[in-house]
Amino acid sequence: MWISELSQRSGVPVATVKYYLREGLLPHGEAQGATRAVYDESHVRRLRLIRALIDIAGLGLDRVREVLGAVDDDRSDLMARIGVAHMELSSPPATEPSDAARERVSRLVRRRRWHTDPGASHATALAAALDTAAAAGQPMSDETLDVYAAAAADVARRDLATTPRRDAEDATTYAVIGTLVNEPILISLRRMAHENLARRRLARAR
Amino acid sequence: MWISELSQRSGVPVATVKYYLREGLLPHGEAQGATRAVYDESHVRRLRLIRALIDIAGLGLDRVREVLGAVDDDRSDLMARIGVAHMELSSPPATEPSDAARERVSRLVRRRRWHTDPGASHATALAAALDTAAAAGQPMSDETLDVYAAAAADVARRDLATTPRRDAEDATTYAVIGTLVNEPILISLRRMAHENLARRRLARAR
Repeated sequence: MWISELSQRSGVPVATVKYYLREGLLPHGEAQGATRAVYDESHVRRLRLIRALIDIAGLGLDRVREVLGAVDDDRSDLMARIGVAHMELSSPPATEPSDAARERVSRLVRRRRWHTDPGASHATALAAALDTAAAAGQPMSDETLDVYAAAAADVARRDLATTPRRDAEDATTYAVIGTLVNEPILISLRRMAHENLARRRLARAR
Repeated sequence: MWISELSQRSGVPVATVKYYLREGLLPHGEAQGATRAVYDESHVRRLRLIRALIDIAGLGLDRVREVLGAVDDDRSDLMARIGVAHMELSSPPATEPSDAARERVSRLVRRRRWHTDPGASHATALAAALDTAAAAGQPMSDETLDVYAAAAADVARRDLATTPRRDAEDATTYAVIGTLVNEPILISLRRMAHENLARRRLARAR
């Protein structure tokens, strides 16, 4: 397809597509003469990933470049690519989590028999969030943490069951976009479920 | 307690406490002579709410003032207070959701027999997030949406079961802080659950 169709398919203006080409975020198409090039489905997917990283994850161009670098790194295996991409999505917490919170996360991982890296950024983010809850006067009990973990596992299992098994680049793109677009869905649903319960409780109280 | 103890209990520096007092975000304590005042538990809780709104929700002072205004409004019932507070937390989506996405949200609410306001900001945010997922090339099916909704309901039920039944101000504070501090916990757990599943799949593939 020509650049005009690429723009239409991806919803990204032609001028912006050219900017991404100049910046090296989007691979060049196959040259057809001196000034034209043709693009394929991989360019459409790459543009969707770039827009998701900018619009949904709120990343700056420098961090977008790092995520794309991890996706494109042929030496790293699928897991490492997804890991780096997810790491870029989880900003490091403002303060280091306490040892006690880290230990609670480790115990949770053992209870659930999860295969996860204790040093991964989302494990650190979880420990920091547990500290924040306690500091805000509402510490989360292990029992509640287990309910949350079970709900998170249900959602993740469903995501993986519906993930198409394609090549490594596609799988990474899929995982990153899935994380970015599905998290706001989960959060909105949680707030609606809360609204439902609050309304029912209120109706009973009257 | 004196202002020094209030500062210590809440972790907010004395100068910042004085600033909130001047700005009217924190009610004045009971005067003891011309220059001193005593504070109670309600001040500690109010300071925690203010810090959660600023540090965790990332709200500016103007929006913190609106949330506190809703919490303090004696004319509104508990549900309305929680509703306004949550509304302030859910930023309006950048673009209006499509009619089709709104209709999908309405059907979901009917399927689950949820008592929710279709015009509430989180219902709008959900419709917009469904549009975003489709635009990113990964539309969420109704079946997956139901799995997500069930997980969200599990978490919300647990939250409500562990919420102490206090007065309206306390309940609102509790709901707002709970939403702010527990959402990052849920998101981190979802990423860890994904890491676990990806590692297991990778181990099997080898």
